[in-house]
Amino acid sequence: MILGDMGAEIIKVEKVGDGDDQRKLGPFINGESCPFMMINRNKKSLTLNLKTTEGMQLFLDIARNVDVVIENFRPGTVHSLGIDYDAVKQINPGVIYCSISGYGQTGPDSRKGGFDIMAQAATGMMDLNSHPGERPSKTPLSFHDATAGLVALYAILGAYIQRLKSGDGQFIDVSLVESGLALATQEVSAYFGSHRVPKVMGTRNHMSAPYQAYRCKGGFIVVGAGNQRLWERFCNDVIEKPAFLTDPRFATMADRVAHMDDLEVALEEVFAAEERGFWVEKMDKAGVPGGPINSLDQALEDPQILARDMVCEIEHPIAGKIKTLGIPAKLSGTPSSLRMPAPILGEHTAAVLLETLNLSDEQIAALKMAGAI
Amino acid sequence: MILGDMGAEIIKVEKVGDGDDQRKLGPFINGESCPFMMINRNKKSLTLNLKTTEGMQLFLDIARNVDVVIENFRPGTVHSLGIDYDAVKQINPGVIYCSISGYGQTGPDSRKGGFDIMAQAATGMMDLNSHPGERPSKTPLSFHDATAGLVALYAILGAYIQRLKSGDGQFIDVSLVESGLALATQEVSAYFGSHRVPKVMGTRNHMSAPYQAYRCKGGFIVVGAGNQRLWERFCNDVIEKPAFLTDPRFATMADRVAHMDDLEVALEEVFAAEERGFWVEKMDKAGVPGGPINSLDQALEDPQILARDMVCEIEHPIAGKIKTLGIPAKLSGTPSSLRMPAPILGEHTAAVLLETLNLSDEQIAALKMAGAI
Repeated sequence: MILGDMGAEIIKVEKVGDGDDQRKLGPFINGESCPFMMINRNKKSLTLNLKTTEGMQLFLDIARNVDVVIENFRPGTVHSLGIDYDAVKQINPGVIYCSISGYGQTGPDSRKGGFDIMAQAATGMMDLNSHPGERPSKTPLSFHDATAGLVALYAILGAYIQRLKSGDGQFIDVSLVESGLALATQEVSAYFGSHRVPKVMGTRNHMSAPYQAYRCKGGFIVVGAGNQRLWERFCNDVIEKPAFLTDPRFATMADRVAHMDDLEVALEEVFAAEERGFWVEKMDKAGVPGGPINSLDQALEDPQILARDMVCEIEHPIAGKIKTLGIPAKLSGTPSSLRMPAPILGEHTAAVLLETLNLSDEQIAALKMAGAI
Repeated sequence: MILGDMGAEIIKVEKVGDGDDQRKLGPFINGESCPFMMINRNKKSLTLNLKTTEGMQLFLDIARNVDVVIENFRPGTVHSLGIDYDAVKQINPGVIYCSISGYGQTGPDSRKGGFDIMAQAATGMMDLNSHPGERPSKTPLSFHDATAGLVALYAILGAYIQRLKSGDGQFIDVSLVESGLALATQEVSAYFGSHRVPKVMGTRNHMSAPYQAYRCKGGFIVVGAGNQRLWERFCNDVIEKPAFLTDPRFATMADRVAHMDDLEVALEEVFAAEERGFWVEKMDKAGVPGGPINSLDQALEDPQILARDMVCEIEHPIAGKIKTLGIPAKLSGTPSSLRMPAPILGEHTAAVLLETLNLSDEQIAALKMAGAI
């Protein structure tokens, strides 16, 4: 999606018949999957039956002329289909071929299938997000899926830079498990240094306080006085308790982290006097990071989110005018853009075969008859 | 960190005196911060007092020759320091200048400071991770911090590709809030389509079942039978209950999502008979994604993680031999690497000033006397 947003021509290869599984994920608008429409904007759809000789050959013919191939089959599958890196490299030596899998292309678990939840379970993220004895809880988004996509993206862009300089292509191997684990730099480094396994922190941070949600009159706020200067401003100008600055439990960051429970009690006594709007405004005035806790609908109506074009509209031929998320990476010179709605299944099959391989209508009809497209 | 891992020369500019706040975050080895040492590998440290005329001028002199400038001050600060994009562009027209902030460089909240927890609160992630009435819970990692770093990274690489082609530099504006929100493609698209605000799902997935943690004898496992083929294999070969395939509550993905509670009860009745190792092995044999739920220490000792070099060692001059996370993006042609430990504060100040500006020992001593470095 992001490569498409950045301007690349993306040809999405889908199964003949029902296409990408995500097309069946609800909710739907006029029968079109909302999650599918979001994440497949700016892509063309080409149906191929890779299990037929003709379909496999068409894949290779198209791959001959592309910059990048991305696949996320279970390791080994592209080899058995005859479309692995070695096969594509033979006909396109400069190709960048990126494989994304649950556990990676090598190692004892490489042949296991892995979705986001397995990666969250494997990397300790579910354990860190769960309370002892209760049913373990995954984080609310598919973070490891998304992160693996971002890792693949920067690896592809890095490889493309290398190709511009040397002409060489290469193979990229990205896994959900490693991409998710690599985000845990603070937690892992703390474990390596202390040999203490981090515990569930709920709203808190292992290394910083006050940096959590606090109960105030009728609701909750977050406070992030994450360094000594901010703590001083917070005590003097927000809660107006300068005595906290010399309280031995709260004087330094190390003191506050060691006395997080006491700090929570002390601050919630102060916060209980007023509602969240009062405290958020006081933090804003004092320049102390803090704010309300939004639900997703409140987030999507937030004036800041709207002012930054994070909610956009796009016209879909079947679903009509639909909303989609905007672009988080704002480049002044080469801005990303929403140019095309998500494709109907196979919408661009004939066009791609004509443009890239110059196939005639008769040839395309014969391939359809043969079940290859 | 990742640009450094990829081979870029990174000059980290730190405050004269105590440097980056993260140097004070524990745990410590021989007085050196473990989180700091992790995330600052492959970087040089240069101290500058940007509030002195000499310090500001040195910054600009060095910026004249770099490819990329990255800053994460509160919006407006680099302008008042005289080192904003306009100032650097005047002397280095091809520069890529990336600003990372809590809420972005524009909009009503742009001047607010924002750390990860504010972004998790603003984007709905804390709400989605919390149970009604309880103190809201953030996700266990600083996901929005990390994601903003990844968004900045791909934007910089995209801009660098553009620069290789055209010579043009540009300005990049990335925020924690937007980077985190942009990950929520499934949840946001579902809300846009249904106008229903997603609720806390704990271990579950909004759109897929069985795809969660289940209680078995003496523990928990995750199961990710995320499409119809996997559901069939799961019923036939793992739990050996083919009758579930024709149960009207469980026949299709939509049925299973609609009857998640019933499905949980039915599956936990089966799982209660055996321990987690039994079920994980059966899922592996059947090719159904599933696995145990690791704690962070278990994750870091996992044979797959170790086989893929995700735990590495690096020699630090003060802390000695320390462990660090490996490289999740595995490129065959231009692999990333760990070349240098994190720097001591100001370790490379003199070397950078000599190499980039050809300053003499006397000039460097005078700058030190003036408090500029």
